Amino acid sequence: MFFASDNSGPVPPQVLDALNRANDGHSMAYGADALTDQVTQQIRTLFEAPEAAVHLVATGTAANALALATLCQPFDTVFCSPIAHIHEDECNAPEFYTGGAKLTLVPGTDRMTPDALRSAIKTQGNRGVHGPRRGPVSITQVTEQGNLYDLDTLRALTTVAQHYGLSVHLDGARFANACVALNCTPAEMTWKVGIDVAVFGGTKNGLMGVEAVIFFDPALAREFELRRKRGAHLFSKHRYLAAQMAAYLQDDLWRRLAETANARSARLLAGLTSRADIRNEAAPT
Amino acid sequence: MFFASDNSGPVPPQVLDALNRANDGHSMAYGADALTDQVTQQIRTLFEAPEAAVHLVATGTAANALALATLCQPFDTVFCSPIAHIHEDECNAPEFYTGGAKLTLVPGTDRMTPDALRSAIKTQGNRGVHGPRRGPVSITQVTEQGNLYDLDTLRALTTVAQHYGLSVHLDGARFANACVALNCTPAEMTWKVGIDVAVFGGTKNGLMGVEAVIFFDPALAREFELRRKRGAHLFSKHRYLAAQMAAYLQDDLWRRLAETANARSARLLAGLTSRADIRNEAAPT
Amino acid sequence: MFFASDNSGPVPPQVLDALNRANDGHSMAYGADALTDQVTQQIRTLFEAPEAAVHLVATGTAANALALATLCQPFDTVFCSPIAHIHEDECNAPEFYTGGAKLTLVPGTDRMTPDALRSAIKTQGNRGVHGPRRGPVSITQVTEQGNLYDLDTLRALTTVAQHYGLSVHLDGARFANACVALNCTPAEMTWKVGIDVAVFGGTKNGLMGVEAVIFFDPALAREFELRRKRGAHLFSKHRYLAAQMAAYLQDDLWRRLAETANARSARLLAGLTSRADIRNEAAPT
Amino acid sequence: MFFASDNSGPVPPQVLDALNRANDGHSMAYGADALTDQVTQQIRTLFEAPEAAVHLVATGTAANALALATLCQPFDTVFCSPIAHIHEDECNAPEFYTGGAKLTLVPGTDRMTPDALRSAIKTQGNRGVHGPRRGPVSITQVTEQGNLYDLDTLRALTTVAQHYGLSVHLDGARFANACVALNCTPAEMTWKVGIDVAVFGGTKNGLMGVEAVIFFDPALAREFELRRKRGAHLFSKHRYLAAQMAAYLQDDLWRRLAETANARSARLLAGLTSRADIRNEAAPT
Repeated sequence: MFFASDNSGPVPPQVLDALNRANDGHSMAYGADALTDQVTQQIRTLFEAPEAAVHLVATGTAANALALATLCQPFDTVFCSPIAHIHEDECNAPEFYTGGAKLTLVPGTDRMTPDALRSAIKTQGNRGVHGPRRGPVSITQVTEQGNLYDLDTLRALTTVAQHYGLSVHLDGARFANACVALNCTPAEMTWKVGIDVAVFGGTKNGLMGVEAVIFFDPALAREFELRRKRGAHLFSKHRYLAAQMAAYLQDDLWRRLAETANARSARLLAGLTSRADIRNEAAPT
Repeated sequence: MFFASDNSGPVPPQVLDALNRANDGHSMAYGADALTDQVTQQIRTLFEAPEAAVHLVATGTAANALALATLCQPFDTVFCSPIAHIHEDECNAPEFYTGGAKLTLVPGTDRMTPDALRSAIKTQGNRGVHGPRRGPVSITQVTEQGNLYDLDTLRALTTVAQHYGLSVHLDGARFANACVALNCTPAEMTWKVGIDVAVFGGTKNGLMGVEAVIFFDPALAREFELRRKRGAHLFSKHRYLAAQMAAYLQDDLWRRLAETANARSARLLAGLTSRADIRNEAAPT
Repeated sequence: MFFASDNSGPVPPQVLDALNRANDGHSMAYGADALTDQVTQQIRTLFEAPEAAVHLVATGTAANALALATLCQPFDTVFCSPIAHIHEDECNAPEFYTGGAKLTLVPGTDRMTPDALRSAIKTQGNRGVHGPRRGPVSITQVTEQGNLYDLDTLRALTTVAQHYGLSVHLDGARFANACVALNCTPAEMTWKVGIDVAVFGGTKNGLMGVEAVIFFDPALAREFELRRKRGAHLFSKHRYLAAQMAAYLQDDLWRRLAETANARSARLLAGLTSRADIRNEAAPT
Repeated sequence: MFFASDNSGPVPPQVLDALNRANDGHSMAYGADALTDQVTQQIRTLFEAPEAAVHLVATGTAANALALATLCQPFDTVFCSPIAHIHEDECNAPEFYTGGAKLTLVPGTDRMTPDALRSAIKTQGNRGVHGPRRGPVSITQVTEQGNLYDLDTLRALTTVAQHYGLSVHLDGARFANACVALNCTPAEMTWKVGIDVAVFGGTKNGLMGVEAVIFFDPALAREFELRRKRGAHLFSKHRYLAAQMAAYLQDDLWRRLAETANARSARLLAGLTSRADIRNEAAPT
């Protein structure tokens, strides 16, 4: 996975073909089209979650910020790693969308440990009304440094969160790369290990700009829709987002793209000799 | 102009071709690509504004909300018509992006009159620190009911705003339709009549989803960029927005699409017999 | 009631005496003191609401804005009269505290009619995800122009709200004046006619600066406390707010002050001859 | 200085006397009274800053959050210590008032070092539009652990900030204790060492609840006033805040109260034997 090129390479021809096909005739606006319906059903099937609420947005930052806003009150704090994309690379978008919630950085590396998370949550609870209330936990998989959480660690992290009644968000900008590297299903990497809301990213894995936000408990769906519109992220011609996602899902394109990227990344890594050289790459085993 | 179909019809083949061409090889992410540069220059030329700051976003609501946020403090109020899109159809996006500014509805129809605007601004200034401070004026051209402001009226409105030191935003979701109907240039409909920030809409005139926000005074450009990123509206693969806009600008496609739409709308209107039938249509003369 | 002087006259000696008494010895900070407990119980008794959540703040704007924020999502709209204090005189505080909710002005005078309210709510619901969601109804009693809602009208208004599942906020900056003028109890003017959250104002009726916010359903209490702290309205030396309120409640001082004010206002009115003269006064009968 | 009792002890009799005196006759509301004018002038004289904008609020959190909001854009980050009151004890009030700015915690103890601050600022600037923009530096004097910055260190910190064009906020909840401990003047501890905005705290040093926010450059005064009103922190009966502050300034009461508190704290410290025992106390030398 050569991260520097995640956003700079071309999209696969299947995506352009899908846009061409979606361009045939008229369809309903704002996501009320047949293609959006189809994609929603496909994602539910892929995630083995027939009741899930599924929504598409065009950027990963929108996916994360809207998901967190739906899980979080403005007087809460989100728990994440010190180098989480939501902290370092979104120009305060989570703070904006949540109405001013704080991000609490769990000490350690890009991979939070369950112990460090528990400790951070405990500490945060000591200040009563003076400190923010504990809010959701946000996990990035693959991490910003290209590392993976294995399924047991994910389960351990969500167990800590659940112990304190906190929900869990998965920033899956590189969801597909993780699934391939772990050789697991999307369900196994999300709700089966206790994830409440997952971002199923497409943009860093070949799409022009589409991410799916998946709420395994659909109760939050309507609020998400209102927040998405308020955030100016509801596309009038939503079918062109849906078309990209449809291509991504067709014949497991998402998985095949990730397999290629992971293999390339592994080859790159094999040829590198120092830690300094591999800045920006990942090595899913 | 059959408004019901603005968002439901296909995009012209030139747009898909442009996406195909943009898909050749690698390019820089986040708007640092050559195509974005080219489009910026083309829009500056089209608007006869060589210093203008030009930024692309994917939705009209984002264009409006971000533009207003850049012109407005959270303790201000925006002046607009009672049926302005920013008031009725953006689910509080302007309030969100401005940090809680108010919208003051200028009494009257979809077309504000200079007198009504002046009166609303005067009234608003009577409350000192208790009421919101006066903020920008927002004008929609073509209006939400398909009506046009002529250039003299635009000038009269901006003169009122300038008298009170207020800036002026133009919601140009149907910018091209207005230019064609008024048989004027983009410059004549914007900075030459005193508009400070214009939205040059593409989505309702054939694009998949691209709007250009144009600041004729570039001093606000950096803030806009930070606000766009914070709002999650900076596309990593920005070249696919730029490609659509490039096609839109090539050989005046924007103008030709609007000519066709306006002509169709006029024919439709000619065949209609009652007011009830023409709900949702416009008749630029 | 000479409104111009509401905020300019002296406070009654009982209030200063109470501050003196509260100044004896040490007590717990941030509202954990015995006086705050006592006042909470007294207000519950006064309002015949043993379960109510009661919180003190120092300004009427804080009381209103925090109450609305607790009832309202940022993608909602509040329904109020066109001259509501929350709209005209709070410099966007409701928009700020709610995170950007909109205020929908119910056409008419300072006194909303049930029909106008119903019509405004209906209209607001027509835009799906594009318009804001319907939020709480806010009623001011005594109104900003010194008029009263009788109990039947209050009940009719809350019935409309309840029909649409909306909660009701009472801006009671002049709560005491209304109770006296209507010769009713606090319970009769609030939860018995369907009010969900009432502001029991003290500042405009003799206190230095204390308002009680009363949630008849205590489920929102914890959120209110967090929002109050986040809004910087939790006083460390909370006992001095409680002391003022204790004096206000002692021997029905609140009622006696309002009786005096109402009588003075009636005398003033009796001596006035034109409508122009009575701007700023009220005439509770 | 026995911090546990900062908010729990009685106020000195001079403060109650001042409230009594302020209660004589009528005066203008919302800070347009003579006492507020007088206090403004006195503070300007005390700080040797004849042009300063001076505003009173009732809580320290309001003072800090409003000051930061005036210095900071929502896409900025504030630099502060990891245990700053604004980070740990204000329930996201700074995030709320700034519209979602981030707090960047400068690694180290309660006392930021100039090197650590420079390093944090440098790091923050590496992410272009992806990270937040650099915003103001916030210094707490006396710190939350009762430690002091000497004047040279304050100067060194503001020099770092100025090098990067950043403004500096001083959280002076215990301003008086610091002035006494350092044996310096208010001017020497603020603008003479490069502080842009200082909070001159009264609440933790004997007042019921008053803090002065002092902008040495008055250009931000009007915005502060609008933000204060929007935050619901403008008191209608502002004279009772002014009266407390007037008592505080009269015959250097503020200094005498701090001298007493510091002496008591020193005696306490002298009698303590372990680090664990002195949690919550301070030892200005």
